[in-house]
Amino acid sequence: MTRTPSIDADRLLGRIRALGQIGRDASGALTRLAGSEADKAARDTLVGWMTDAGLTVQVDAVGNVFGCWPTGPIGLRASTVAGRPAAAPGADDAPIMLGSHIDTVVNAGIYDGAYGVLAGLEVIESLRDAGVSPAHPLVVAAFTNEEGVRYTPDMMGSLVHAGGLPVREALAAADSEGVTLGEALARIGYAGSFMPGTIRPRAYLELHIEQGPILEHAGDQIGAVENLQGISWQRITIAGEANHAGTTPMHMRRDAGAAAARVITFLRDYAHASQGVTVATVGTLRFEPDAINIIPARATLTADLRDRDNARLQAAESALAAFLDTLAADARVDITTERLVRFDPVTFDATLVTLIDAAARALNLRARRMTSGAGHDAQMLARICPAAMIFVPSQAGISHSPREHTSDTDLLAGARVLLHVTSRLAGV
Amino acid sequence: MTRTPSIDADRLLGRIRALGQIGRDASGALTRLAGSEADKAARDTLVGWMTDAGLTVQVDAVGNVFGCWPTGPIGLRASTVAGRPAAAPGADDAPIMLGSHIDTVVNAGIYDGAYGVLAGLEVIESLRDAGVSPAHPLVVAAFTNEEGVRYTPDMMGSLVHAGGLPVREALAAADSEGVTLGEALARIGYAGSFMPGTIRPRAYLELHIEQGPILEHAGDQIGAVENLQGISWQRITIAGEANHAGTTPMHMRRDAGAAAARVITFLRDYAHASQGVTVATVGTLRFEPDAINIIPARATLTADLRDRDNARLQAAESALAAFLDTLAADARVDITTERLVRFDPVTFDATLVTLIDAAARALNLRARRMTSGAGHDAQMLARICPAAMIFVPSQAGISHSPREHTSDTDLLAGARVLLHVTSRLAGV
Repeated sequence: MTRTPSIDADRLLGRIRALGQIGRDASGALTRLAGSEADKAARDTLVGWMTDAGLTVQVDAVGNVFGCWPTGPIGLRASTVAGRPAAAPGADDAPIMLGSHIDTVVNAGIYDGAYGVLAGLEVIESLRDAGVSPAHPLVVAAFTNEEGVRYTPDMMGSLVHAGGLPVREALAAADSEGVTLGEALARIGYAGSFMPGTIRPRAYLELHIEQGPILEHAGDQIGAVENLQGISWQRITIAGEANHAGTTPMHMRRDAGAAAARVITFLRDYAHASQGVTVATVGTLRFEPDAINIIPARATLTADLRDRDNARLQAAESALAAFLDTLAADARVDITTERLVRFDPVTFDATLVTLIDAAARALNLRARRMTSGAGHDAQMLARICPAAMIFVPSQAGISHSPREHTSDTDLLAGARVLLHVTSRLAGV
Repeated sequence: MTRTPSIDADRLLGRIRALGQIGRDASGALTRLAGSEADKAARDTLVGWMTDAGLTVQVDAVGNVFGCWPTGPIGLRASTVAGRPAAAPGADDAPIMLGSHIDTVVNAGIYDGAYGVLAGLEVIESLRDAGVSPAHPLVVAAFTNEEGVRYTPDMMGSLVHAGGLPVREALAAADSEGVTLGEALARIGYAGSFMPGTIRPRAYLELHIEQGPILEHAGDQIGAVENLQGISWQRITIAGEANHAGTTPMHMRRDAGAAAARVITFLRDYAHASQGVTVATVGTLRFEPDAINIIPARATLTADLRDRDNARLQAAESALAAFLDTLAADARVDITTERLVRFDPVTFDATLVTLIDAAARALNLRARRMTSGAGHDAQMLARICPAAMIFVPSQAGISHSPREHTSDTDLLAGARVLLHVTSRLAGV
């Protein structure tokens, strides 16, 4: 006998709070870097909940954790038969995957990542509790090292899962003390035995806090994320000449610091002029020799450019390059740039986005279509299957901070939308 | 029998090079911080040369070293008779003082300071060697801790000598390891027994490398320094809000880094618009949290403003303050300022400046009247007696660096001007 599935508020909120206590230091700060003892403790707790819920737990070679329902290994057929491709989207046993990550930054909040994993688990338990029989398997996934704090690149587990990074390269990534991810995973017991990417979903949904102020500012409860900004990171190094601040006339200076200031102002003005579609940030800047009475000989800064449209992102990169050329001549400085990160924008699956939008409206929630400004595992999964994200408001837009907060009401609303969309996809 | 006094080139240049070898570390870098063992070694060498030259050496309570000629204590009459003032400028035994300092910055050049002291000694020896009888005593002075690297404030010994800082405060100044100047001087044997300021000169002359590019750029050999820029140092702290670089729309940011860039650009534009009379430098800038993808919550920078005219310097300070007020409102940031240093401009004695200018021309040297952009002991002596400075070119304007360089020709030209002016003042 089946009944209407519904989110168990106490179970979901209780688990979010419980997981948020794992990885606290003596001062109460929350840090769960990938492959750490804190990560192990959180993984053990999650796996315990999955097992208690009757899911089959599978761990792949880069430590990605999958809880599968109905029970029994999923998506293994292809990989266990040599020479045959993994199950393609739409194959009979291709599951609906709900996921995110449970690693955190240093001194983190409790919602970023963990919310999506625990809500995915809650959706599966809700369906199971309601006695329904989904038309497709369901999987909840926790991807390794999404934050990228201990190991580079970020979104590593989902990137490997999507085939964008070889397993051996991921396992060889070393932290600042020379410990590789492979060693760290073996040490905590999460170096799994099956091949990343084996589970090829028919659809991927990721529920996440917005990490920005747009929903709160607009008074909306649900974001149907239709795309994700492309990211361009560069390091810009400006070389001028150190000289005495008192004795060097203004017109004879080669001031690397003043040139850096003009780069910052250029980027700010460029982004403002784009009417909100391009964002630009200079988050780091160092002067050398960094003395009150010495004109800076060197300034090193970073430019973070983002846009949801790749042509516009390229235009911003080109405009910056042209500005730097002009600046070098005008300020008589030498400027070099180094590309640090470049991700193209991602467009999520239109059908899934429409389903999310419709689900929110069916639940009488105020929803808006929006762009993700941050990177997420969903952008990697979008390479191999239809994917989309659901956002809930972040108070004051704050994340990566103990002040990260989303109200219980909003957390439950997001989970209900995830349940609603999953039910539609599962034919419930 | 007297003859025309002349600079002994080998003696002067040899001493400059010899002193420049004292305080070298294993890598060859030159560092003689005030009160250090290297400072002691340099002082011992200097005192040896003074003694060999027949001067009477006196060391005061803050370690200032004076070599006096003709022999016999100078200027002690007043201080040894209780209740009577020290000898005033023009008193019969008030000496002509030639001086500078022999402490250095970290990884220094060999000319800054040492040149003026050794040229002063050379001038006295030249006069003595020529068998002349000066109408007034001559003193060569080496003032303690001019650079201010180990102890704050800089120009400390001359400031105490001029009555601008109590002896006990100077001796209580502590370095970064808690060692006071008094302890350091006692340790190296230069805690002298007589009261700073006892020797009240009738005139003070300081020969120094320019530490700027103006003489070299103009092709001149001698600077007759008619004034010294006032200095205003402020620390400016800008508090905004840390937020995610991707998810925070431009119009919702409170970007402390972008605001700091506008301060730098404002100061640069202001100084450029002054047609070269006001100079402005931002030499230090720090962002917090200093992460590529986080909008800076805090920017801390310093403003170094200089002008030879106090009204113009005050106008620059006021313009900056007004700009910061506007900026705080416009960029929605909080801005606080802290005054770090404020010295009024100094005007040197017009008669001495004219004598320097005339001496240079009499010696067929290309001379120009100019402003000192850096601080010097002469600005402290100017509080208590007629004072002026003679500059020689600094190659590429570089100082406080191993690359500091002045040609032998220019070094000797400067010493000859000092000898010429001193001879006039001494009635030789």
